[in-house]
Amino acid sequence: MHTTVSSATKTVTIGPDQPFCIIGERINPTGRKIFQEQLRAGDMSAVEKDVLDQVAMGATMLDVNMGAPLVDEAELLAKAVTMIQELTDLPLCIDSSVVEALEAGLDAYKGKALVNSITAEDERMELILPLVKRHGAAIIALPNDEFEIPEEPERRLELTKYIVEQATGKYGIPIEDIVIDPLAMPIGADSQMVVRTLKTIELIRDTFDLNMTLGASNVSFGMPDRHALNSVFIPMAMKAGLTSAIMDARTEKIVTAVRAADLMMGNDEWGATWIALHRAKEAAKA
Amino acid sequence: MHTTVSSATKTVTIGPDQPFCIIGERINPTGRKIFQEQLRAGDMSAVEKDVLDQVAMGATMLDVNMGAPLVDEAELLAKAVTMIQELTDLPLCIDSSVVEALEAGLDAYKGKALVNSITAEDERMELILPLVKRHGAAIIALPNDEFEIPEEPERRLELTKYIVEQATGKYGIPIEDIVIDPLAMPIGADSQMVVRTLKTIELIRDTFDLNMTLGASNVSFGMPDRHALNSVFIPMAMKAGLTSAIMDARTEKIVTAVRAADLMMGNDEWGATWIALHRAKEAAKA
Repeated sequence: MHTTVSSATKTVTIGPDQPFCIIGERINPTGRKIFQEQLRAGDMSAVEKDVLDQVAMGATMLDVNMGAPLVDEAELLAKAVTMIQELTDLPLCIDSSVVEALEAGLDAYKGKALVNSITAEDERMELILPLVKRHGAAIIALPNDEFEIPEEPERRLELTKYIVEQATGKYGIPIEDIVIDPLAMPIGADSQMVVRTLKTIELIRDTFDLNMTLGASNVSFGMPDRHALNSVFIPMAMKAGLTSAIMDARTEKIVTAVRAADLMMGNDEWGATWIALHRAKEAAKA
Repeated sequence: MHTTVSSATKTVTIGPDQPFCIIGERINPTGRKIFQEQLRAGDMSAVEKDVLDQVAMGATMLDVNMGAPLVDEAELLAKAVTMIQELTDLPLCIDSSVVEALEAGLDAYKGKALVNSITAEDERMELILPLVKRHGAAIIALPNDEFEIPEEPERRLELTKYIVEQATGKYGIPIEDIVIDPLAMPIGADSQMVVRTLKTIELIRDTFDLNMTLGASNVSFGMPDRHALNSVFIPMAMKAGLTSAIMDARTEKIVTAVRAADLMMGNDEWGATWIALHRAKEAAKA
């Protein structure tokens, strides 16, 4: 299945026959104290740097999250969206747990955004999906509900089915505009955590052929040599059927691993992108 | 399924619930002119270095191939096997296209070797499998015959079925001692090459639950930045069901990727091996 998103001037297609959709995770104040302070002071200079860094490394889209304590998140998200769209033509993923912020971000956005996110909770779908529908956006959906983040892949598949039924049937969202987040959690907490995520990805691919994205950096949380883990996890998830990730788009090792995996998946004909990437690196060295 | 191989004092288990079996590819004169000249002059010093390098990097087994022009391969393979078994307790993979060399190598070997290789060709099975049976060895089998190296995964599965029937039925080889090589060829020749290999691996896993190995470095032949490609291909193949590879065991990036993939596959409980590997690297730096 193909999901398209766009900025004012550029369309990106997400799908199993496309190069992997790298959604840069960086524009997010979570865990970044200095950035949080800057945002409270109205200083958006870090956002500009984050945009340019991620664009330079070849991100396909950028996630934008402005959730920090003591800020007007809605106002800030609208401001960030406007500013980022002046800096780059990459489509954006508008990311907030606050409905008013999503609305402000969508109002400011030019194009077809990806919205992050809903869950299988009726209340959250009821608040967010009409907004998504009105803006003609695409939506990331997590297969958890108010009771649990299920461990079992089969239960995650059931919740995915519920989301798809509700979003398409009740809210009129086209099925191709639903992108499932199969839930990636730290491997350090449980050795079977990634096995379950990979199994969930395969089940959703085989059952619904939906596009999927996830927060890839979560997997290595708390472990040493995180870049090495992330750059192996994403290709394995791509093999299972993952078509996108909200991920570290600033670390060459990880981005290179994704482009290598594109080649392995048959999505880089004659290795044209791979060879061009290599030449660009050689040129940068010289 | 579990395949066991052993040296005089050490047993290795290959299987989907085990850490990946890294078979060091280095002891092979193919494409190494200086090594070929040394072998012709009776100089085995390079073998010693290759053994120690691969052991130091954490190889699980070592492949031994002595096929060079103008050498007595049988004599040389027996000599190499004896010498290597004095240097390391890792089990060996005895690798030759010459039946007499395999026989000499097996005669010299102490333990249960892995023999590389047979195909679905009746003549080759008839020459080699009685030898494998007599020595109680395990065997690598390639699903190609005298007519073709099939492109289609389904045809490779058919040839695998034929090999399994012949080897178990006619020659009395236990099924767990058959390790299939699903055939990995250069991605540069055809963008769908790895897709076919990965599909073959999944089919063989799902149909027979057999262990599999392949020459992993082939995949990146002719492409730039081969280490980056190899270190992504192997984890993707592990996700598909590959349990071993004859591979570059001297490049840290590639070996690290395999151990990261072990962790992702749930075969490194609590990340104990991963964390120990990290600490060893930190200690080596300090």
